[in-house]
Amino acid sequence: MNPTELIIKKRDGKKLSKEGIHFFTTEYLVGNISEYQMSAMLMAILLKGMDFDETYWLTQEYISSGEVIKFENTNGRFIDKHSTGGVGDKVSIVLAPIAAECGLFVPMISGRGLEHTGGTLDKLESIPGFQTQIPLKRFKELVLQNHFAIIGQSKEIVPADRRIYALRDVTGTVESIPLMTASIMSKKISSGIDGLVIDLKVGEGAFVKDLDTAKKLAESLSKIGAKFGKTVKILFTNMDSPLGSCIGNSLEIIECIEFLKGNYQEDLKEVTFALLAEMLLMGKIVKAKNQAEETIMQTIKSGKALQRFAKFVELQDGNPGIVNDYSILGKAKYALPIIAEKEGYVKDINSKEIGWALIDVGAGRRKISDKIDYTAGLKLSKKVGDYVQKNEVLGELFYNNGKGERVADRIKKSYCIVKSSIIKKGRILGIY
Amino acid sequence: MNPTELIIKKRDGKKLSKEGIHFFTTEYLVGNISEYQMSAMLMAILLKGMDFDETYWLTQEYISSGEVIKFENTNGRFIDKHSTGGVGDKVSIVLAPIAAECGLFVPMISGRGLEHTGGTLDKLESIPGFQTQIPLKRFKELVLQNHFAIIGQSKEIVPADRRIYALRDVTGTVESIPLMTASIMSKKISSGIDGLVIDLKVGEGAFVKDLDTAKKLAESLSKIGAKFGKTVKILFTNMDSPLGSCIGNSLEIIECIEFLKGNYQEDLKEVTFALLAEMLLMGKIVKAKNQAEETIMQTIKSGKALQRFAKFVELQDGNPGIVNDYSILGKAKYALPIIAEKEGYVKDINSKEIGWALIDVGAGRRKISDKIDYTAGLKLSKKVGDYVQKNEVLGELFYNNGKGERVADRIKKSYCIVKSSIIKKGRILGIY
Repeated sequence: MNPTELIIKKRDGKKLSKEGIHFFTTEYLVGNISEYQMSAMLMAILLKGMDFDETYWLTQEYISSGEVIKFENTNGRFIDKHSTGGVGDKVSIVLAPIAAECGLFVPMISGRGLEHTGGTLDKLESIPGFQTQIPLKRFKELVLQNHFAIIGQSKEIVPADRRIYALRDVTGTVESIPLMTASIMSKKISSGIDGLVIDLKVGEGAFVKDLDTAKKLAESLSKIGAKFGKTVKILFTNMDSPLGSCIGNSLEIIECIEFLKGNYQEDLKEVTFALLAEMLLMGKIVKAKNQAEETIMQTIKSGKALQRFAKFVELQDGNPGIVNDYSILGKAKYALPIIAEKEGYVKDINSKEIGWALIDVGAGRRKISDKIDYTAGLKLSKKVGDYVQKNEVLGELFYNNGKGERVADRIKKSYCIVKSSIIKKGRILGIY
Repeated sequence: MNPTELIIKKRDGKKLSKEGIHFFTTEYLVGNISEYQMSAMLMAILLKGMDFDETYWLTQEYISSGEVIKFENTNGRFIDKHSTGGVGDKVSIVLAPIAAECGLFVPMISGRGLEHTGGTLDKLESIPGFQTQIPLKRFKELVLQNHFAIIGQSKEIVPADRRIYALRDVTGTVESIPLMTASIMSKKISSGIDGLVIDLKVGEGAFVKDLDTAKKLAESLSKIGAKFGKTVKILFTNMDSPLGSCIGNSLEIIECIEFLKGNYQEDLKEVTFALLAEMLLMGKIVKAKNQAEETIMQTIKSGKALQRFAKFVELQDGNPGIVNDYSILGKAKYALPIIAEKEGYVKDINSKEIGWALIDVGAGRRKISDKIDYTAGLKLSKKVGDYVQKNEVLGELFYNNGKGERVADRIKKSYCIVKSSIIKKGRILGIY
């Protein structure tokens, strides 16, 4: 087979064969197909699409490029959650210990911050000592012992995706439904799950901008999951404004601990509980969704979800003392209030703008080699729908470098304040 | 500016700015934009197109990446011919000495064989001693002295195209109208011409498969030429079957010498004379196209075009004795006749098939580093429209390696012989 001929085939909108996809993927991994040929192919796939068969074959190639974890006798209780990425999205960190406490097993392989969005691994690494690079064998032990563990993508799991994802990130080929499907599903299937609940973020602050695209992606994810014998449930959630009250790594860890102590922002609770309800139903922990809230509440009220979280931190070499002493996480040198310039109702908080702005105080990366400032971030005191008076505090920026004022100004501009009152909308836009 | 953002812009079908195209091209040339980003951009351009402005800006960037030859006081007589490439296409080698003898100056920068098509440089290099790698200063002198010279693309002329073309060849991004336009026009404009006649090959054996695409490409080439103050005339010529009677490097040189001696295949004469007529009209050598044939004929009958060809060979260090002694070109060890299996009329000779088949006996390259066997090739004794009897000779294959019989078989299969008679059609399909 000839790589150029295969690129031309896809460029001309034709269907690739199973053998063609196998050839292109495997030859790329051994270096016989160059990165520039792969990126031309990826662009052709993005613009010309792939049908169900092609997406399935690509997912298969991704999976068979690495190891597949096997848990024995799972009884359908190995359920994971995946998020397509947002601003202030700390759902995994509160959801996993609750799900585990309810009796599910959650083998979670997470990612780092991408573009303007944060990453679960970066948030967890803000805990002193916490390790995310753990061998698969130890990961399996941790999941069986504490019912959940969260680690970074290993070299052993789906190396094809690891290499192709890095290329997609810099060649404008991220937003492709078949490529996103193969990337997400291959990693999840390789981590040994029975079922998967996906938080598909929609809106300006997300990679998927509209509900139409979200539905197409959901259909693709669900069908590919079914083909591999995995149950997949997808929630569409709004990502126009940041989720919860904190954005920034150690600030979000504190928000998570507070959540597990019963103190939560309504929107973060709404999304977390809805995802948990689907997981509990899927894992047969509850028989109906309306039983889920009580089950979840119990794990919080009893303090057991928090205990399980502390155990998780300890098992991955972090300092579990953080659940009672936030000073262990360190603190930024400066705090700058964001002051409202006029009174009115908060109509909109542009999460994409805030995500990009916070990168300038080190809360995220510009390039993969950048070091994150874990203590930098933003605490919102006003959310969409809230009324603010002139000169009232909208939020507080925490930082250590010299860029605080400029960043605070950009954050202020990302607030849209209007005269007429705003109805607070729920985050859940739909379910697939 | 961010390369990924620019790729996304084009991917989403938006117009690139002059600054964006400048940034992408110049940063690629200095190595700040990687080949995989360039290839993703090229695929996005191929699939989403470029408007006139973008094509113009790209052509400008190509030109300013290198040197531009300037001939002083040209009086509009520096006219070149370009062909988009075909099988048996030796037009340049007979056309240039005739045009020069008529009084035009032809500064020709040619290419090598590409895929199944032959290249003027390879054909000329089959002449012992002949040099095609000549510094621009010497090239200018040769053009002024003998009215024409043919050299290979130099590193000084349009380095942007040289690098991007190599990438397009292996990433399925050749057949793009804006990319073809920028590539062709930048090289020709940089070679110091006043006007250009283009032989746009159409059909299965060409890179442009249909007349619709040919017309779009012609419009683009013509408009970009006009924007740079250059007259451009385009002939659409049929490339379904090979041009002339020989395919293969030294065989084609012999056919060219015979042509200049007045012995020619009708189709090669038709195309060559039509292109020459446009050139002579453009360079004001003749006042009307119908005067051209007489002027051309005179240069052949007088033997002066042949003399000028011999002088050209001598000036570029080749052995001019070839015009009287073909044995100087060497000869293949084996000759194998291609025998007709049935009687009838030749309806079709698939030039693409023949081009690919002849690569197996070394007449062309599979990869850029392959060495060409100059003596290998095919001499056709039957052309489209001819009547053949069973067991009559269709052509003769010349070769040195062990693949002769297999190649001869493939060539035989590229002939389509039918019972009902065929009207011989002209090669000229249209003019733009």
